[in-house]
Amino acid sequence: MNLAEAFKRTSSQLAGHGKRNLHVLKDALQQLDGELESDYYGTGQIIETFQEKIASYLGKEAAVFFPSGTMAQQIALRIWCDQKGVKKVAYHPLSHLEIHEEEGLKELHQIESVLLADNDRIIQLEDVVNMADDVSCLLLELPQREIGGQLPEYETLEAISAYCREKGIKLQLDGARLFEILPYYQKTAAEVCRLFDSVYVSFYKGIGGLAGAILAGDTDFIEKSKVWKRRHGGDLISLYPYIISADHYFDQRVAKMGSYYEGAKELASYYNQCAGVRTLPLVPVSNMFHVHIRLPVETAEKVLIEVYEETGIGLTGRLNKVSSSSCYFEVSIGDQYEQVPKTKLDHLFDVLGTKLKNRG
Amino acid sequence: MNLAEAFKRTSSQLAGHGKRNLHVLKDALQQLDGELESDYYGTGQIIETFQEKIASYLGKEAAVFFPSGTMAQQIALRIWCDQKGVKKVAYHPLSHLEIHEEEGLKELHQIESVLLADNDRIIQLEDVVNMADDVSCLLLELPQREIGGQLPEYETLEAISAYCREKGIKLQLDGARLFEILPYYQKTAAEVCRLFDSVYVSFYKGIGGLAGAILAGDTDFIEKSKVWKRRHGGDLISLYPYIISADHYFDQRVAKMGSYYEGAKELASYYNQCAGVRTLPLVPVSNMFHVHIRLPVETAEKVLIEVYEETGIGLTGRLNKVSSSSCYFEVSIGDQYEQVPKTKLDHLFDVLGTKLKNRG
Repeated sequence: MNLAEAFKRTSSQLAGHGKRNLHVLKDALQQLDGELESDYYGTGQIIETFQEKIASYLGKEAAVFFPSGTMAQQIALRIWCDQKGVKKVAYHPLSHLEIHEEEGLKELHQIESVLLADNDRIIQLEDVVNMADDVSCLLLELPQREIGGQLPEYETLEAISAYCREKGIKLQLDGARLFEILPYYQKTAAEVCRLFDSVYVSFYKGIGGLAGAILAGDTDFIEKSKVWKRRHGGDLISLYPYIISADHYFDQRVAKMGSYYEGAKELASYYNQCAGVRTLPLVPVSNMFHVHIRLPVETAEKVLIEVYEETGIGLTGRLNKVSSSSCYFEVSIGDQYEQVPKTKLDHLFDVLGTKLKNRG
Repeated sequence: MNLAEAFKRTSSQLAGHGKRNLHVLKDALQQLDGELESDYYGTGQIIETFQEKIASYLGKEAAVFFPSGTMAQQIALRIWCDQKGVKKVAYHPLSHLEIHEEEGLKELHQIESVLLADNDRIIQLEDVVNMADDVSCLLLELPQREIGGQLPEYETLEAISAYCREKGIKLQLDGARLFEILPYYQKTAAEVCRLFDSVYVSFYKGIGGLAGAILAGDTDFIEKSKVWKRRHGGDLISLYPYIISADHYFDQRVAKMGSYYEGAKELASYYNQCAGVRTLPLVPVSNMFHVHIRLPVETAEKVLIEVYEETGIGLTGRLNKVSSSSCYFEVSIGDQYEQVPKTKLDHLFDVLGTKLKNRG
């Protein structure tokens, strides 16, 4: 049996909101009147109401619903590049745009990327100030997912924002996990978004909807983004399955981000008590973190499978290799964490800790 | 009251499958087990099974599900252009790509279009043979929607296909309404698709699903299209609401295309008996046609609203202006047509005919 199968057989899991099955959609639809009309190519009550709601939540003039963040962010960057007449943007080397989009930004928009900071650290003010290239836009991903969800200090954000405004560089927020970082910053979404010219947020990470994204900014920017949405093939006749689920789970979960964050800190401390295990960040700043294990991926898999079988609790379905002697996995706390009683958690980490010690 | 409102108030309608409301999705989901797992970025049982089913139906090696036809077709053309190294394609001046996509093909892919035939007629073999430009791909839309859904003779298709193969021009089928034309051609989908290198079909026209499209072709072509799907932002974590509804209504309606076609011919003959009314085509070759009325749009609206109020039957919610003295609307026959009894239909056209005569 492999890790993914063993994980599926567990009766409870520490991360996430649960399975991504049809119940997620069925539950969101259940309370809604079947007579409710579909949205129609970006118009209609369902889409317009939700766009206004999220624009207001983010403190922006306007917002538009997109099928994906990939589409929304490429378009945001294209608009800022066209406006300035410079086809260059800056972001982190582990940005979604750089590693998960098959070079879409270059292939579809002919936009070059300037990579700031390094694979193992986040962007700081000096990286921006020392940038040699003239760019139209700087994209900041908060938190930086691929390195465990790290965040700059809020003052750094403010300083970067002020610097970019002074230099005529637009600032785009990759807020795939924006809701998740508000408890750490102790800010409202609108306070954070005020530092940015345009903002993308996602509805299937901490919110746990089906898919879909919102891009928000000033009215002129949003009107342009609608034209690009059509060009990309994202202006569907009906987007309502995504909008309805986004709205449903936003209402259900946006206020729970604080408790997810507390859960993440607690769970990380459990992991950090195990031999050869270290979370990144050491103390989480959102609902997410990475768990690094100083064991070859094959050995770590064996240990985890044994733990799942002995305790019935799943930690992850997937390990990523770092080197021949280490690996890691990602944790995002959701609804499931608080359903596992403390006594079970203590027992689980006793078992895991002992097994790791014996293998180490 | 305007025409759209009056249309909404009618108790039955002659065209379409009914309202695009949440019932469409709820009905498709109803029979399915909530435990069924979501697709996951293009993988998983739901998406793979449907792709194989439609590939087989179309007689192609492979297929991929796209959120939209706009995305699927731009990508098909891009692949063929890259393969030949010529960034030029040919299609009809009223192609979806030319008039409904905000120049996406040019803006995102830098592909030039060569327009064949004219606004008022479909592409014939001579148009292709006499084309001065070298193009990578010719796109044929069957039927040509914007001129009432006209079709070339099947022999013309065969001749164009043979010519393109000889000249190294790829042939892409815009089959947004492919299912709908098979009864007229008396061919299977696979027989028609054999003439084409790549094929797009839609699931929310005659099929009546929520949205979504399939692109089909050989395995190498389809693998490339998946990379472009990701670049476009169309490789969503979950596409299942579209896939499930496409599959559900495909099974329910693909065998009914013959009856929709018969209904279209019957209904067109009713319209053609009215003074100053003419359908395009005169005899439909699919489930669709246009109804041209020799009256100013405002006058025609008044007539239609009176007819709706008197009979309770709706014909269209929208009129398109052709000139100061004429207008038209589109009709696509679906499930609703056969629900209107013949006696009501006779009465309806008596009323419409009389009112048109008095205004004409």
